[in-house]
Amino acid sequence: MLPQISQRISQDSSAMDELLALSNQQQVISFAAGYPAKELFPREELEKAFVHRSQASDLNLYQYASVEGYAPLRQKIADFVRHTGVSDVTVDQLFLTQGAQQGISLLADLFLDIGDGVVVEGPSYIGALQAFESRQPTFYEMQMQNDGPDLDQLEAIVKKHPVKLVYTIPTFQNPTGVCMSLEKRQRMAQLAAQYNFLVIEDDPYRELRYSGESLPPIKSFDRSGNVVLLGSFSKILSPALRVGWMVADQNILALVNGLRSASDFQSSNVVLQMIDQYLEENQLAEHIAEICSVYSKRNTAMQEALTRYLPQNCSFSKPEGGFFIWLTLPENLTAKSLLTADCPVSFIESSQLYETSRQANQMRLNFTGVTEEEIDKGCRLLAQRIRNASSELCLKVG
Amino acid sequence: MLPQISQRISQDSSAMDELLALSNQQQVISFAAGYPAKELFPREELEKAFVHRSQASDLNLYQYASVEGYAPLRQKIADFVRHTGVSDVTVDQLFLTQGAQQGISLLADLFLDIGDGVVVEGPSYIGALQAFESRQPTFYEMQMQNDGPDLDQLEAIVKKHPVKLVYTIPTFQNPTGVCMSLEKRQRMAQLAAQYNFLVIEDDPYRELRYSGESLPPIKSFDRSGNVVLLGSFSKILSPALRVGWMVADQNILALVNGLRSASDFQSSNVVLQMIDQYLEENQLAEHIAEICSVYSKRNTAMQEALTRYLPQNCSFSKPEGGFFIWLTLPENLTAKSLLTADCPVSFIESSQLYETSRQANQMRLNFTGVTEEEIDKGCRLLAQRIRNASSELCLKVG
Repeated sequence: MLPQISQRISQDSSAMDELLALSNQQQVISFAAGYPAKELFPREELEKAFVHRSQASDLNLYQYASVEGYAPLRQKIADFVRHTGVSDVTVDQLFLTQGAQQGISLLADLFLDIGDGVVVEGPSYIGALQAFESRQPTFYEMQMQNDGPDLDQLEAIVKKHPVKLVYTIPTFQNPTGVCMSLEKRQRMAQLAAQYNFLVIEDDPYRELRYSGESLPPIKSFDRSGNVVLLGSFSKILSPALRVGWMVADQNILALVNGLRSASDFQSSNVVLQMIDQYLEENQLAEHIAEICSVYSKRNTAMQEALTRYLPQNCSFSKPEGGFFIWLTLPENLTAKSLLTADCPVSFIESSQLYETSRQANQMRLNFTGVTEEEIDKGCRLLAQRIRNASSELCLKVG
Repeated sequence: MLPQISQRISQDSSAMDELLALSNQQQVISFAAGYPAKELFPREELEKAFVHRSQASDLNLYQYASVEGYAPLRQKIADFVRHTGVSDVTVDQLFLTQGAQQGISLLADLFLDIGDGVVVEGPSYIGALQAFESRQPTFYEMQMQNDGPDLDQLEAIVKKHPVKLVYTIPTFQNPTGVCMSLEKRQRMAQLAAQYNFLVIEDDPYRELRYSGESLPPIKSFDRSGNVVLLGSFSKILSPALRVGWMVADQNILALVNGLRSASDFQSSNVVLQMIDQYLEENQLAEHIAEICSVYSKRNTAMQEALTRYLPQNCSFSKPEGGFFIWLTLPENLTAKSLLTADCPVSFIESSQLYETSRQANQMRLNFTGVTEEEIDKGCRLLAQRIRNASSELCLKVG
């Protein structure tokens, strides 16, 4: 007989893994996963970068390296982050992680004891919710509005309850596609300083803007060290590299370093140096521009297809960037009810993306991992599915 | 002001990181870190493997992949593990991790609540101790003997206290170099089944045997699913790949999968497939034989140098494989007292490697990351340092 597992751990299998399984199904048009377009991965450039770096470096490339990650790469990312508006960031405030996911997990591990308060957006990114859930915190939800989360609601929560962490995806939010306004970014930083909570600013989509003006990160308004910014190469280079970063004050990073060391020691130095070489040999901005030009068309294609096919009683978000469109069904129709075995389209139903309100009549649609043709066909089939389900519902009610 | 960090987290900075910093110091002969010899890394073969796989595969190589890791690589490792004696292992019982370190951390996370019982060897691997420490368990120690940990002591502990995890490094233990006898391996599996604890069998050095007969893993005697076997490519290929594996029953792996997914999602598919291709194009056994031939000489060189230079009141282990020799000083001399700024040799002092008994008159010496010349010179200087400290001590006592 095995010993009891920790009381913190749910026996449920991984929802993210199920999600990936779903999106790998054949014959179904997948709007489910948050996949980049594989045809845009810079295969040749990465091959060259790896071989060049391997041949040029002494064999320490293949040796144990530092926990915080290869310093020249951290310097390049610090420069990159500085240009987004965090004007005072130094290489010592930058720590490399195994994707941004590990950044979320390390911060949850560092701050949370059972029952501690965490505020998340409703809806939010399922991977972050899972990282928090395994620490058994008390969840509060701030509802998403067209210009970002409801900060009046946030202030009311933090006035009333002890809250340690506030998790937000300010730019092209996963799953709604919403971009937080400049005013809310400033106010978020100010609230964090005033009420002594830590903002986890998860910003993997910020470079993927297809229209409108870029906005500085919340971190750029942080004077108290209460904001930690997370970034990633997953959406702009390749998710299989598993490299993200964390920008935080050194007192936080010193503690994160200890946790990371005990958790998995360090990232793959081989991969970090491959990326470093890639950035030396290529213009990342040009690569991002190429990605944006493709994704912009797919975003437009999906918005047009949804406008064309969806019944009047549905609505959807119109993001200026990122990976996702958020679709709202009539209130009495749950997204989950559409996901039967014969559903020709996959998507993420909304109830699992809310920690407390569990709203069920919405869904997340990804437009980056599918072609314009698939988008058109998928939206048509999805709309048909919604119409059929609606009329069945009417028959039942009638 | 920042929110309070978790009560589980120590404010100490990472001991492992300090250890690496120590061993990166110039002008000091480093016996401290557990580094493989960098000149043996198969640079060209890995370059070729990466380029061949990248060119041959569709671009899914660079896409998100599964949490458990690339199936063909898991199959190859399962075959490898089967040949060591775990005759019934299947690919479904094999999960890839970010080094074996992540395997330890995931199992600690899965099983431990605050105060739960964990038995470790005294002394043990510092990285494992840190992974357990951040879960605030109750530690018990089983003392190392010449044929492995004292299992009478273990049985007395598990009879008296509720223990969830027993952590052991059976083959060429870190830090003592001791290899657990066949009898103790069998008894360990039997005790786990009888007293319902989980054995974490950390076995990264098993292929690095320089003399004597190979012994089957504890896992090969496990009929109850109470043993989890961890392995790694770090010591036999390259630690910068950060790839290890976990062999466990599927009910455990299903839970580990959920935790891994929330922790950092998955390993780098690029790296996993590079290794898979390397294993297709090369004979890993030949590469290991080459490593063993070099390390064997270094092991012999260190044993000879210690015999030549050390004062009579010191003793040391004579390992048949692995990375380390364990040196015992006179009882009244602490290893830490030798580690002054002008010490020409670095090593790991013993007190931090014991969870409860904190024995201070021992040290771990690594012989794989240094040349035979450095070994001779380092041992001579270390012996001199010990003689000087001993005579100072005599003067003080006198």
